[in-house]
Amino acid sequence: MNVTFIGAGNVATHLARALQAAGVTAEQVYSRTAASASALAQTLGCGWTTEISEVRPGADLYIFSVKDNALEELVGELPPNDGLWIHTAGSMPMELFAGHARHYGVLYPLQTFSKERPLSFRQIPLFIEGATAEDTARLTALARRLSDHVEVLSSERRRYLHLAAVFACNFTNHCYALAGKILAGQAIPFDVLLPLIDETAAKVHDLTPAQAQTGPAIRYDENVIHKQLALIDDPQLRELYRLVSQSIHKEAIQP
Amino acid sequence: MNVTFIGAGNVATHLARALQAAGVTAEQVYSRTAASASALAQTLGCGWTTEISEVRPGADLYIFSVKDNALEELVGELPPNDGLWIHTAGSMPMELFAGHARHYGVLYPLQTFSKERPLSFRQIPLFIEGATAEDTARLTALARRLSDHVEVLSSERRRYLHLAAVFACNFTNHCYALAGKILAGQAIPFDVLLPLIDETAAKVHDLTPAQAQTGPAIRYDENVIHKQLALIDDPQLRELYRLVSQSIHKEAIQP
Repeated sequence: MNVTFIGAGNVATHLARALQAAGVTAEQVYSRTAASASALAQTLGCGWTTEISEVRPGADLYIFSVKDNALEELVGELPPNDGLWIHTAGSMPMELFAGHARHYGVLYPLQTFSKERPLSFRQIPLFIEGATAEDTARLTALARRLSDHVEVLSSERRRYLHLAAVFACNFTNHCYALAGKILAGQAIPFDVLLPLIDETAAKVHDLTPAQAQTGPAIRYDENVIHKQLALIDDPQLRELYRLVSQSIHKEAIQP
Repeated sequence: MNVTFIGAGNVATHLARALQAAGVTAEQVYSRTAASASALAQTLGCGWTTEISEVRPGADLYIFSVKDNALEELVGELPPNDGLWIHTAGSMPMELFAGHARHYGVLYPLQTFSKERPLSFRQIPLFIEGATAEDTARLTALARRLSDHVEVLSSERRRYLHLAAVFACNFTNHCYALAGKILAGQAIPFDVLLPLIDETAAKVHDLTPAQAQTGPAIRYDENVIHKQLALIDDPQLRELYRLVSQSIHKEAIQP
């Protein structure tokens, strides 16, 4: 089995490494950016191009892993072939391939990827969807070579999974960023937060987030909340603090 | 050295266990709630009371670990004695002890405590403050018996540390809760998020939160943001999503 990568960003890079480790041969890498295309191609030992017209038709698998707003255009530009075309986007429907590909599907890895951090794919939940039973079966077999957690999920439900991931990852990381900014104002290093951050994540392995919730907002302790609001100069951040505190309290009294 | 606990909640329970393991003898436990007082006293093998007037004067250390709004009242009700009085609250000033205690200070552990989860105190950063150089020295010696990370921090700066902890822990956990609620609406178990939650926390050991930020908000991808907003029925949650996304984007372009 061989695979061509359309897009060479964080997701493509991690997926490509995992596929290579699983014995799948890389055929070609396309990226609009020569630096990205050549870097991934070098890792994989295959050719690369920045022209979609130069993508060769003979691969078994075409993985489109690009920004959402570039996906449909690229799919339209690649001439139909006999390979299985898949994308890796949480919020994009599988049916964007309809009329362009003969065999298609989605493989959505529920994880946050940065090129510089190695990750074991075996622990990453992979959510797949195929256009036909045959496509689904091929994707399932492929996904199981990469991960111990493979599930079929429709495009409709995958959108909610992506929304949940934005809260659990992107918004969480932003909470870390805001905490770090508050500490920086006091010349306290970010590192002091790491045991707290780790334990906050570890707790929800054993407790539900509702059981794990602590702090002033859960009991809507106005004394502490008002004192803390008074420490925040930025009006937008003050509003964010107020809204999240209200939301915590609301979930506590009416989950 | 022996210690009396005023308050028997999560922080008191964890601190008491750590002190016991460090060879400090428990003298007495006070809590308004008999069940809490007796449970902690039983763990420690000491007496307990629900009457502040029955707290005995001879202990070396009195640890006030109660809700912020009960702290000042309790401090006023305990007759002065020769022990070192400390509290464990992030946002309360050390000087609330002035006029009530002869020796006093603060020991603030930067961690989230639930009674049911064991924790190693050695990794928990402890921030201390003493009324005099002598009180600070005694508190430093005590804190070093419990943790490898002991720092002196003023009440003024500790308030910001507590605010940062609310973001890094309480708000983060609420992001987990909201993610879980979104998944529950699709009958998807919370557990699928755990590898993502763990990696999000692990990333900021190696990268700054700004470097670790991923997702639609950082590039303010309006296409994805509007699609995701359309999935959220609750107007308050929609507003929270909008505000956090704006804040992520703002930090990305103007940190």
